Amino acid sequence: MSYRAPVGEFRFILDEVVPLAPVAAEARFAEATPETVEAILTEAGRMCDTALAPLNRAGDLHPARLENGVVRATPGFADAYRTIAEGGWIGLAAGPEHGGMGLPQALNMAVNDMMSGACLALQLNPLLSQGQIEALEHHASPEMQALYLPRLISGEWSGTMNLTEPQAGSDVGALRSKAEPRGDGTYAITGQKIFISWGDSDITANVCHLVLARLPGAAAGTRGISLFMVPKYLPDADGNPGAANSLKVVSLEHKMGLHGSPTCVMAFEGATGFLVGAENRGMAAMFTMMNNARLAVGVQGIGVAEAALQKATAYAAERAQMGVIAGHPDVRRMLATMRADVFAARSIALACAVALDMARAAGGADWAARAAFLTPIAKAFGTEVGIRVSETGVQVHGGMGYVEETGAAQFCRDVRVTAIYEGTNGIQALDLVGRKMADGGEAAFRLLQEIEDGAEDARARLPDLAGKVWAAAETLREATETLLAQDMPDRSAGAVAYLMAFARVLGAHYHLRAALADPTREKLARVYILRLLPHYAAHLVEARAGLGDLSALSDADLGL
Amino acid sequence: MSYRAPVGEFRFILDEVVPLAPVAAEARFAEATPETVEAILTEAGRMCDTALAPLNRAGDLHPARLENGVVRATPGFADAYRTIAEGGWIGLAAGPEHGGMGLPQALNMAVNDMMSGACLALQLNPLLSQGQIEALEHHASPEMQALYLPRLISGEWSGTMNLTEPQAGSDVGALRSKAEPRGDGTYAITGQKIFISWGDSDITANVCHLVLARLPGAAAGTRGISLFMVPKYLPDADGNPGAANSLKVVSLEHKMGLHGSPTCVMAFEGATGFLVGAENRGMAAMFTMMNNARLAVGVQGIGVAEAALQKATAYAAERAQMGVIAGHPDVRRMLATMRADVFAARSIALACAVALDMARAAGGADWAARAAFLTPIAKAFGTEVGIRVSETGVQVHGGMGYVEETGAAQFCRDVRVTAIYEGTNGIQALDLVGRKMADGGEAAFRLLQEIEDGAEDARARLPDLAGKVWAAAETLREATETLLAQDMPDRSAGAVAYLMAFARVLGAHYHLRAALADPTREKLARVYILRLLPHYAAHLVEARAGLGDLSALSDADLGL
Repeated sequence: MSYRAPVGEFRFILDEVVPLAPVAAEARFAEATPETVEAILTEAGRMCDTALAPLNRAGDLHPARLENGVVRATPGFADAYRTIAEGGWIGLAAGPEHGGMGLPQALNMAVNDMMSGACLALQLNPLLSQGQIEALEHHASPEMQALYLPRLISGEWSGTMNLTEPQAGSDVGALRSKAEPRGDGTYAITGQKIFISWGDSDITANVCHLVLARLPGAAAGTRGISLFMVPKYLPDADGNPGAANSLKVVSLEHKMGLHGSPTCVMAFEGATGFLVGAENRGMAAMFTMMNNARLAVGVQGIGVAEAALQKATAYAAERAQMGVIAGHPDVRRMLATMRADVFAARSIALACAVALDMARAAGGADWAARAAFLTPIAKAFGTEVGIRVSETGVQVHGGMGYVEETGAAQFCRDVRVTAIYEGTNGIQALDLVGRKMADGGEAAFRLLQEIEDGAEDARARLPDLAGKVWAAAETLREATETLLAQDMPDRSAGAVAYLMAFARVLGAHYHLRAALADPTREKLARVYILRLLPHYAAHLVEARAGLGDLSALSDADLGL
Repeated sequence: MSYRAPVGEFRFILDEVVPLAPVAAEARFAEATPETVEAILTEAGRMCDTALAPLNRAGDLHPARLENGVVRATPGFADAYRTIAEGGWIGLAAGPEHGGMGLPQALNMAVNDMMSGACLALQLNPLLSQGQIEALEHHASPEMQALYLPRLISGEWSGTMNLTEPQAGSDVGALRSKAEPRGDGTYAITGQKIFISWGDSDITANVCHLVLARLPGAAAGTRGISLFMVPKYLPDADGNPGAANSLKVVSLEHKMGLHGSPTCVMAFEGATGFLVGAENRGMAAMFTMMNNARLAVGVQGIGVAEAALQKATAYAAERAQMGVIAGHPDVRRMLATMRADVFAARSIALACAVALDMARAAGGADWAARAAFLTPIAKAFGTEVGIRVSETGVQVHGGMGYVEETGAAQFCRDVRVTAIYEGTNGIQALDLVGRKMADGGEAAFRLLQEIEDGAEDARARLPDLAGKVWAAAETLREATETLLAQDMPDRSAGAVAYLMAFARVLGAHYHLRAALADPTREKLARVYILRLLPHYAAHLVEARAGLGDLSALSDADLGL
């Protein structure tokens, strides 16, 4: 049993659940015709099935290695990477000026979902390039764009993000890397960065590091951070990789999973860097990059969940224990809830992508606010679903799930990091109840209105399901009002629970839409609304609880 | 930061929450005085801290290996095993006639909890011996007992359970291994067994396999299964290991975790076996062994959860990101809910053990029924808590949690199998709503009455908490009645949800007791009742849902 890209599922969601049509109706995305969408999804799906999926286990068994200062990728990854690059998939959403396809993020995320399901460790490499492309498109000078963008988009070079330092993880503002102006327009970058995914490899001719560092005399915290391009090889006059820069990979981490993706400790030792954007405005540039990256990490979780679902389904269809186990109620429950959750998370992620596309193509603060609001939900819920579904996948396999040869356990180990990187899910939740509700909850209430309107539309055909979704949205509205009245410590204590509740209700909304559009989908919607939605209420009890019970606990009570 | 056995926690629970006093008041357990309990816990705890915990990572890094047909254990395991054996811990609950201490299971489970937290992979070895000791005490002839029990109890020899075959996992009745009578009272055992934990090693002088096999002409299914003792070396006239038996380890599994525990494929090739108990009554004997083993596996989950909690707590106390992270509301929430869940699961497991002890010492069908009812809950919830808490432990560590050197990820990988072996958690739930409710729900209703009575007792002092627990118990009572009226397929579809709901409510009951006994515990009880208990309601919605929505899904709807 191998991975099959769920092309039809994307078509259905983009046709019926979170329609791409309004995006394609905008001039900017006029090329995203139904025929193009169909062709893109089919072609990308075929690549994932044939070129990427067969490498997934190799990535686990033969991790990237550090040899004489160079990272050697898993055997086979270089060829598969070239297949991705030659398909144009790295620049699917990049601007056409530098070789991108200029297509919507919604389509890009669908392709990323498939690539993640096929081989997460490899997919992370082009994903980081995509983030870098976006950051350069927004913040780099035309000269830097002309030099780097074509090479990143073609896949000739790859890109990385260098934020984290040993003392600066979630607290990015604590970073200490330094950038000294040399007087010739370049900067000498010095410092150590950790957790740098694909910080080096032998599969691209150059590796372009975007590095956060401090200029002399810069303010403390996030206001004193600037962004630099620090390439592994300094481009020569023709734009070819020239002299080696003063940077190196110190070591690779031994991780729980995602072995095929080298996670590097990087040392910058007076490396030559080029300022991106304005001095001390590095965090703003990083946020451009991070918002899409966060959505994309949510999508990674969904892609792995899809792969885990497929593997568990195939096993359950074959394995006989008192009849084929797929016929046993409890196994059927697991398969059905896995499937229902994947649909919910995928719809949320694509709704976020469509909002991004609309904001970019049509403008309008509402779309931008919606995208911003949905981003932490898509990230945290998508990765949570990745973890839950892959874990249930192991359970469906029974003892075989715990044996590595089966592949079910690898999904669990690989996807686990998605709840941590690009901002832990706890950080996503704080972002949601903090920055993303600083509008007084307007984006939240707009979404809730849409959910309630959707339930009203469904009431005639699916009264019981519609009633449950409407009631959940109403309870969520009340909880949102409660949260808005809380101070930040109280809100923070309930943030993860609030995010989970919102995701649960949104998922039900999209299931209801699916059931209305296609009556054969009503059955899965019913599974979701009966078995998964109800936890929203428990989450909201916690969300409303505030900090009280937690602050009552002394350090001693917690063994601190 | 290393593991510290939570000795005080066991004392508190056994003093105040699920009192051991009634057990110690029975003649059979008269030796379980408070002084003995204190001494046992302290001594075992010290051993776990100093001899076992330092080996946990070695087990992960240096898995047991198969060399020339012999399993070589992780370096250091042999010495630590001897320390366990010499402490008498293997036979803590075994009968004194053959060298056991004859102490209550409640105490044995406390010690197993500590050993699991310190080094799960090694602890599994003596745990399997404990299961074998129990089976032999109940079903073996006096001669067999005299030969094997002293050596198993002293730890000179170890024991294994050989049930699973490639086609016979959850469906034990499908097993095909054969036992041919040789006419001399022995049997020739032939067949392949898989997933045999500690199926061989170089740390004991002999390995005693309890093997399920079929006699010629035996009935199909579980009624035609007999149990045999098949030692690696046939004991000579002096009871020393003699001629090698015709059995071998074919291979070891590569597992997600628990690397220090060799999981063997065993081949029996006309090996000499000795019948244990009556012909065709092997399943009954196996069930004796499995019921305690199931509780013990739940306890393994709790032990690992404790270790993961300790590691996360220590990290959160040290790691500074905008202040020490233990001060951040969301991190505090994680630490507090982890702690609250460990307490709940541990109390449930010890309540089950106390019921077992009372059934054995005082007799009475009520205690036996309670132990039987609590066993699948203790197993499934204990292991679920093991998985959840160790996963949250990784999350508390952020990126460091994904790096293996930290040790947080190993807990996740190691504990994962506990939800699978000794009957998957799905099988536990089916046992709960099936066999364990075949009494018309009497054991369930008795427990619910105790919970409601407890809430009434607490109402004066803790009215809000008591009210919530009482209401939850009442809802659970109604759901229990609904389930009892369902046919088995409907009940099966809601089985896991029902089990989880019952565990959640029971956990609240014990937290309430703890808060009444010690006012400083009220704070943690409040965290549990506010943040964890409320999910019972969602579980009960699912439990009541029956099979309807699942059976409506066709195979095609599920991608089958």
